Amino acid sequence: MAEILKGKPVAAFLDEQTAEEVAKLKEKGIDTTLAILRVGERSDDVSYEKGAMKKCRNVGITVRNTILPEDVSYDEFYRTLDELNNDPQVHGILMFRPLPKYLDNEKARNFISPGKDVDGCTDGSLTGVFIDKKIGFAPCTAEAVMETLKFYNIELKGRNVVVLGRSLVVGKPLAMLLMKRNATVTVCHTKTIDVASITKNADIVVCCTGQMESVTSEYVSNGQTIVDVGISYNETKQKLCGDVLFEEVEPIADKITPVPGGIGSVTTSVLVRHVVRAASNQMK
Amino acid sequence: MAEILKGKPVAAFLDEQTAEEVAKLKEKGIDTTLAILRVGERSDDVSYEKGAMKKCRNVGITVRNTILPEDVSYDEFYRTLDELNNDPQVHGILMFRPLPKYLDNEKARNFISPGKDVDGCTDGSLTGVFIDKKIGFAPCTAEAVMETLKFYNIELKGRNVVVLGRSLVVGKPLAMLLMKRNATVTVCHTKTIDVASITKNADIVVCCTGQMESVTSEYVSNGQTIVDVGISYNETKQKLCGDVLFEEVEPIADKITPVPGGIGSVTTSVLVRHVVRAASNQMK
Repeated sequence: MAEILKGKPVAAFLDEQTAEEVAKLKEKGIDTTLAILRVGERSDDVSYEKGAMKKCRNVGITVRNTILPEDVSYDEFYRTLDELNNDPQVHGILMFRPLPKYLDNEKARNFISPGKDVDGCTDGSLTGVFIDKKIGFAPCTAEAVMETLKFYNIELKGRNVVVLGRSLVVGKPLAMLLMKRNATVTVCHTKTIDVASITKNADIVVCCTGQMESVTSEYVSNGQTIVDVGISYNETKQKLCGDVLFEEVEPIADKITPVPGGIGSVTTSVLVRHVVRAASNQMK
Repeated sequence: MAEILKGKPVAAFLDEQTAEEVAKLKEKGIDTTLAILRVGERSDDVSYEKGAMKKCRNVGITVRNTILPEDVSYDEFYRTLDELNNDPQVHGILMFRPLPKYLDNEKARNFISPGKDVDGCTDGSLTGVFIDKKIGFAPCTAEAVMETLKFYNIELKGRNVVVLGRSLVVGKPLAMLLMKRNATVTVCHTKTIDVASITKNADIVVCCTGQMESVTSEYVSNGQTIVDVGISYNETKQKLCGDVLFEEVEPIADKITPVPGGIGSVTTSVLVRHVVRAASNQMK
């Protein structure tokens, strides 16, 4: 039986710190504010927005919702984004993506000023992670993995960590963050030959491929920590599942993050912490 | 006996292409130009400069040498760099570093406009490598490794490649370039436990730690390709040596790059190719 590394206590721990920092800024007259920019009414966005708003409320962060119609003009969209960038009362911007194509996702992503990029989506933020400089913020999910490992005192120095997936949103930045913490990191991907032989020899395996339940018992061995970043809806089982086939892997692993209730529940805590940090940086 | 992967034919192959590109630009009235900016008379810089100038001459690139006195003022230094950035007749800038401390190495490094950063030293260039976007140029040494592997038809897709060293100049960007070519990459460093057990199982090992002759027979196994990026002067042997103890490793490996005459001799070829590419990009 593996130890289940739940996200909830990690989130609670982070939120407590964030709430304190927000309160301190409030004493200085600063109302820490997150602007959420949403185009249209996609249900995924709306549901994430609800979660983020609840989290903000809990830690004392003000949310300013900007909802633009699905057919907002290009000019209007960028004018809005520009206003949020330049508004000193807005400390962080969460923009839902993908946007409708005519709004140019690449342009929009990099239009957010790095200091307000609390979601860690701009090239500036990614550069900060790569070159280890204080530019922007790390992508929230990658940082949520790091915070979870830290909370559960999982040693990284000198440990062999395998990251499954090389996306710019999770895999690559996570590899950099792990390396910074002195882990020996291997990144596997779709072209890797015999992934199982690599993962079986790791101390820690982080799964972020988005391939539902693809990490089976063949991929793991005793004593390992398994971190599952994936989240997909399994139609057959009628429930949310991760990249890991939990019922097979859990009995073998030493520690494992569940889905749901694992990394996903830490992500918004990282987001709101970024907001208060952004507010604090903008004071300087 | 390993096949010796010499740098000279790789350099010749690249230079031939570069010379053709330079000639084509000349037909269009463009005199491809590299500006070399040197502060003081450090012997390493002067000797690298000579090599770069010779290489430029061979491929038809004009060199503009700007040599500033060791006690150049801060303002004068940045005015000079700014002029090179803004001069449309200058296509690439090679600036020797480290500069005297009062000139602020970090500022100077990022002061070069990414489009002219043929040495791949700015954050912009590093970002380009990390997020795989056409910003600036990859660091020359990392790219020299890639070109050498390509020239000798060494398959990367699905191969396990271990990079020894996690510097921003070679290790990290090289890991990204290898990943882009679909290699499965592991980065080892000073905190890695039992490096030999990791390198022994790789298909390709790239050594870029700067630790002279530290990669001994214990680290390698038959059938491997060993790439040696290091270059140090061995006082005892009175000759240049790499990170690899050549006489021990060569009999075991399948292929190996020598030092000197390996990766180092490809680097300036990559640099001058960047110059002509920069000139070509600046036409657009």
